Formats: sequence, structure tokens, C-alpha cells
Amino acid sequence: MAKQISDLKLGILGGGQLGRMLIQEAINYNLTTLVLDPDTDAPCKHLANYFECGSITDFDTVYNFGKKADIITIEIEKVNIEALEQLEKEGKQVFPQSRVIRLIQDKGVQKQFFKENNIPTAPFKLVNTREDIFNCGFAFPYILKQRKDGYDGKGVMKISDVADIDHAFDAPCLIEELIDFEKEVAVIVTRNSKGEMKTFPMVEMEFNAEANLVEFLISPSTYPASLQQRAEKIAMDIAASLNITGILAVEMFVTKNGELLVNELAPRPHNSGHHSIEGNYVSQFAQHLRAIFNLPLGDTRAINNAVMINLLGEKNHDGVAKYQGLEKIMAIDGVYIHLYGKKYTKPFRKMGHVTVVDQNRDGAIEKANYIKNTLKVIS
Amino acid sequence: MAKQISDLKLGILGGGQLGRMLIQEAINYNLTTLVLDPDTDAPCKHLANYFECGSITDFDTVYNFGKKADIITIEIEKVNIEALEQLEKEGKQVFPQSRVIRLIQDKGVQKQFFKENNIPTAPFKLVNTREDIFNCGFAFPYILKQRKDGYDGKGVMKISDVADIDHAFDAPCLIEELIDFEKEVAVIVTRNSKGEMKTFPMVEMEFNAEANLVEFLISPSTYPASLQQRAEKIAMDIAASLNITGILAVEMFVTKNGELLVNELAPRPHNSGHHSIEGNYVSQFAQHLRAIFNLPLGDTRAINNAVMINLLGEKNHDGVAKYQGLEKIMAIDGVYIHLYGKKYTKPFRKMGHVTVVDQNRDGAIEKANYIKNTLKVIS
Repeated sequence: MAKQISDLKLGILGGGQLGRMLIQEAINYNLTTLVLDPDTDAPCKHLANYFECGSITDFDTVYNFGKKADIITIEIEKVNIEALEQLEKEGKQVFPQSRVIRLIQDKGVQKQFFKENNIPTAPFKLVNTREDIFNCGFAFPYILKQRKDGYDGKGVMKISDVADIDHAFDAPCLIEELIDFEKEVAVIVTRNSKGEMKTFPMVEMEFNAEANLVEFLISPSTYPASLQQRAEKIAMDIAASLNITGILAVEMFVTKNGELLVNELAPRPHNSGHHSIEGNYVSQFAQHLRAIFNLPLGDTRAINNAVMINLLGEKNHDGVAKYQGLEKIMAIDGVYIHLYGKKYTKPFRKMGHVTVVDQNRDGAIEKANYIKNTLKVIS
Repeated sequence: MAKQISDLKLGILGGGQLGRMLIQEAINYNLTTLVLDPDTDAPCKHLANYFECGSITDFDTVYNFGKKADIITIEIEKVNIEALEQLEKEGKQVFPQSRVIRLIQDKGVQKQFFKENNIPTAPFKLVNTREDIFNCGFAFPYILKQRKDGYDGKGVMKISDVADIDHAFDAPCLIEELIDFEKEVAVIVTRNSKGEMKTFPMVEMEFNAEANLVEFLISPSTYPASLQQRAEKIAMDIAASLNITGILAVEMFVTKNGELLVNELAPRPHNSGHHSIEGNYVSQFAQHLRAIFNLPLGDTRAINNAVMINLLGEKNHDGVAKYQGLEKIMAIDGVYIHLYGKKYTKPFRKMGHVTVVDQNRDGAIEKANYIKNTLKVIS
């Protein structure tokens, strides 16, 4: 019998909450998990079969770690690509493939990929320095994004006038037309090495304006089926063009005239898929494992209406985390708590999430609002 | 703020699959888990924050282990009760309480408890030696059960004639009238320290005759609501009479004339509740944690029809486990695999389980039959 999933060692670069939830699922397949993360207290530390504290951006560290695994995946894009390329050359399976991570790591290259593949996206221009911004030719206001290393709203700013440029990033950036969108939505698509592809139903996101982080996620969307099908088609087109093996989150804007514009990609489990643990037949974590082990993909249909609330550290709280209101929200039916095992909280740090499922969509939203106002992470 | 679930250390006596699934859930609450098990390769070994290889029946080992935890629970009844009693005296929380485990450990005392509390159960008699069996006064055939240490069909035999008695257990036993039942069913009930109680919908079980192990479990039952309500009432009466904190599985016979007779109790997560992970809003593992941490109990309603198939080691296979047919069954929608992390298989060893959920009950049963015939644990 060929080697099968239960015989294999999965190496995960990054040991945060995404790795943690991936391991919770990997347990069901007897997978041996190895995790590399620079934080000695990473959320995965006690769950992985083997935990190594080290840099995920250092060639030697990633290469030597990868040698210990059979299949290597990521839970964050900012990893050492050269090490992954070398591991691939030596026959290790790296999913998503290093070339996909390389492309997505650079938001400029990502935008060019959209353009070359006729993927609808906001008009953009690439600049190398702050000086270039002055002459970009875009009308104010517009969005400025660092090409590399931005995440969770970091590395993004709005440029409203010339004065803003003085405080702008002085680094290779992407300038993007500000889209007057109606809603941000996401479609998660998964593809295995056989080329089988499946999308999760489209979800709607609501952002915390101050932190630029997803606050609420509602699944499934109530946009017309035709729009949802277009969104799913875009996600599949991207996954096919990338020839990716693994999961890919595709964030999109719905403009006020019903157009869909791709905002960003994430080639890994993503915040916009957390609801799938309870809200869909297969979770994004289970689906990613199926994809990278080249197993048949699971049923992505929604079981119930689900609303996911990110549990962010309260403002003005910095220190050992305490969870206020946990008992109150556990008294509500259909509430699922996921704490991420982070000892310390700080303002807007992602400390956990809560998913509410309810056969009634409005009921789920109402419960989610109550949870948002009741459950607090303080110090 | 008072100490809360995320600050506490949960000690688990036993590190098998039940502990493993309990830990998978405990992760969501940042619980620190400590496990004691005599097997160096126990399924919980790599998942617990602290794993100790040692005897769960030895006073000193259990006592010293328990001192390290805030709350102590079990995943198997055969533990050292005296150590738990001592820990309770010293202020540790032990759930289920030691007196409940003591009562249930002894099937004779369990039966007497049923009698004293008017819980319907098959007529029985207690004997001390093989000699006593000859004079028990029961008509052949009847059932002989060792009062202590039986599990998974071990310690149980059918006595069909005098010749059988020669091979009978020569130990304190329980003789029970053989019930000509129509079906075995189970109701899981949970009670927290506030006295809040909830039952899971009744399930139907089908046994493997050769191994006397649950092979199939179907949730929810299709018996008339009135019978199901009677079963739930019996389970709640038992939990209330025991004043238990935690989860309690109540196995019952449905006789051919629609009577319900309690067979056995298990004061811990139980095989008859595995389907609840995907089939019900709250799982038995989440519910047990809610109960022992005195949190509000979750919604036990079934989400979907669910059929659970125990994955037993194939006959004539003894050695390092291999899973045959995994990929085939993963191609079916609504299939959830749970492997227990056991390196070695042997005939009828519980190596994992699979749950199928389907909006159509017959569809779920059909898929389960296919899975039973397709997925094999060999060596």
C-alpha cells in the first residue's frame, strides 16, 4: 500500500491560530504535525507533535525544518521562498507551491497577474519610492499599499491629499483607485493536484473601520445567485490560472453597480473561512488538508446560516488576557467559541473567534451583535 | 475576575480516544490539559499539555497526578477511587464525583441503585462465586456479567446450559434475565453543578454480534416521540438521583412490547455520543466540559441525520495499522473521519470512527453500509 495521510509528516510554517485550527483537524487523520514559529508561546506550541522555535523567513531554518517533513504548507505568506524552492527541487511537496506564494507575497505582482489573466480588479499603478507617488496621476483619494509584508490592515493607507504623501510609505508600493464599494465579500476555492476544484459559498464581511480588520462575517451571502456564481467563477479562474494546490481565499469588492473586483488573495486558510468549521459540511481546514494530500474534496455547502465574530483585544488593554462575558454568551444556543491560546492581549490582537449558527439568518445576526457587545478580551 | 475556564488545568484519567476528542474540544477554551495513562503511546500523548505515563489504578500515582490539576475528570471508570476521594477532601473538583464512579464501577451496586430508585431494569441476582451460579434460580439462557472491570463486551457471557457454568467467571458477578429486546438505544444526559440538565436525542445502536461492540449508531431515533420522551425521562431521573456533575450515557433495551429497561451507565463521554460532534449543535465532549466547568449547557438538538460507524481492527490483523479505502470514502459527501492515533491494530480494536451526516436518513444509512464494507483497518 502506498504511503497514506496517516503515515505522513506535515510541516507547517507559522504556528498561529490558522495552524492551530489546521492541527485540530489533522488530529482526525493521525497526521504527524511539525510547526516552525518564531514565538516561543505560539498557539500551536503544545499541539504540534514537534514544535520548533525559529524564523520562518530565514533560509537555513526553513530549509532544515522542511527536510523533516513529507509535505510542507504555510499559515502565513511571509516565509522564505528560496528555501521552499530548494525543498521542492529535492522532491519535497510544498503546497501551495513556492511560485504561488512568491506571486502572492508581492501585491504588485499579484495585481499584474490579475491584469494578465483578465481578472477584474481596481485600476492600479506600481511605484518604487515616495517620490513616485506625487506623480502617479491618480485623483485623490486613493489607496496606497506596500507591495510586501502587509497584513491585517497594516501596510495600507488612504491618501486623501498631497499632505498625506509626506507620511506615505517610502517603499515599493501599489497605488489603487479607491473603490466606492457596497460590500466586501470572499470566496474560498480549493484545488487538489488532480485538478479537482470546489468553492465555498460566498460570504459577506463587515470591517472594523478603526483596525481595518474583519469584525463580522456572514455566511452564506444573500446576493443574487447570478452575482454569487460570477464570484465563484472568478475564484475558480484564479485557482486554475495559478495551478495552485491547496486553498485560496479570494477577497472581492462588490461595487455599487454590482461589479466584482478582486481585492486580494491568500493562499492558505483565511479569516473569511472560519465559519466553515460549524457552518459548512466541510471546513476550510479539512478542505485544505484534503487538497494538499490529493484526496477528494469535501462538500462545501452551508449547513446553516453562520455569523463569525472576530474576538479582538480591547483598546487600552495590554497584558495577560482575560475573557469577560464568556458564560453569558455560552447560554445562547448555537454559539461556538474558539480561543487561540494567546497568553497576552493587546489592542485589536486577534485572540479568538466565535461562530453563531442559526436556521434563521436575522436571528444569527442578532446573536452576533449581542456577542460583540458582551464578550471582551481585557487584561 | 474569578478564575475562568481558560485559566484552569484539567486533569484527565485515561488517555484514549475519549480523552483525545475531549482535548480537541478543550483547545477551543485554551484549557491546559494533563493526562495520565499507562500506555506510552496513548492517543492523547502528543495533544495534552502534560502527559504522564502511569497507572490510573494506583493510589499514589493518581493522587500525585490529581494534585497538579484544578478539575479532574475521567475517560474510563476503572480508576483509583480512594485517590479521588482524598483529592475531593483536599478541595479538588472531581467530576463525575468519586462516589458516582464508585457506584458505577460495580455493576452489582449499579443494579441495586436502579432497584432502589425505581429505574426499570432487567431482573437480576448477585453471586459471589461460580458455585453460586448453579443455584441462582434463573431459567436458561441468562446473562452473566462480572461486577467489575468489564468493558467493550469483555466480562460478559451468555449462559445457555449447565455446561456453560463450568466455564463461567469465578468472581463476584451479576446474573441478569436475558432480555428479548427489539433494539438497544441510548440517551446521553448532562448535568452541571447548578443542577441544569439536558439530554441528547435518543439514538439507536446496532451491535457486532461477534465482538459485542457497537458497530452502527443512528441518530436521531425514529421511535415514537412518547417512547423517546420516556427514555429521556429515565436518563434525567438517573442523573438527578445520582446528583452527578458531568455527562452520563444511559444504555437501554427497548423490549418487544415497547418497555424500556436500563442496561448500563457510563459517567463519561461514550461511544453512543460520537455522532454528536457533527450531528448535533453541541457535541458530547463540549457538553461534558460545559458541565464540569459549571457553564450553561449547549443545545443538544440534532442538526442532521447522523450515522456513526466504529472502525474496528480487522480479524487476523495484528500490527502497525494501515487504513484501506480512506480515499474512496472521502469521495462521499458528509463523511467525517476520526482516527484515534493508535499505532497498532488488533482484531476488533477501536481504531477510529466515521460519522456520516445526511439530510436523508436512508441515504445516511446506505452510505454507512458502504463505508463499513469499504474502510478496513489492516496491518
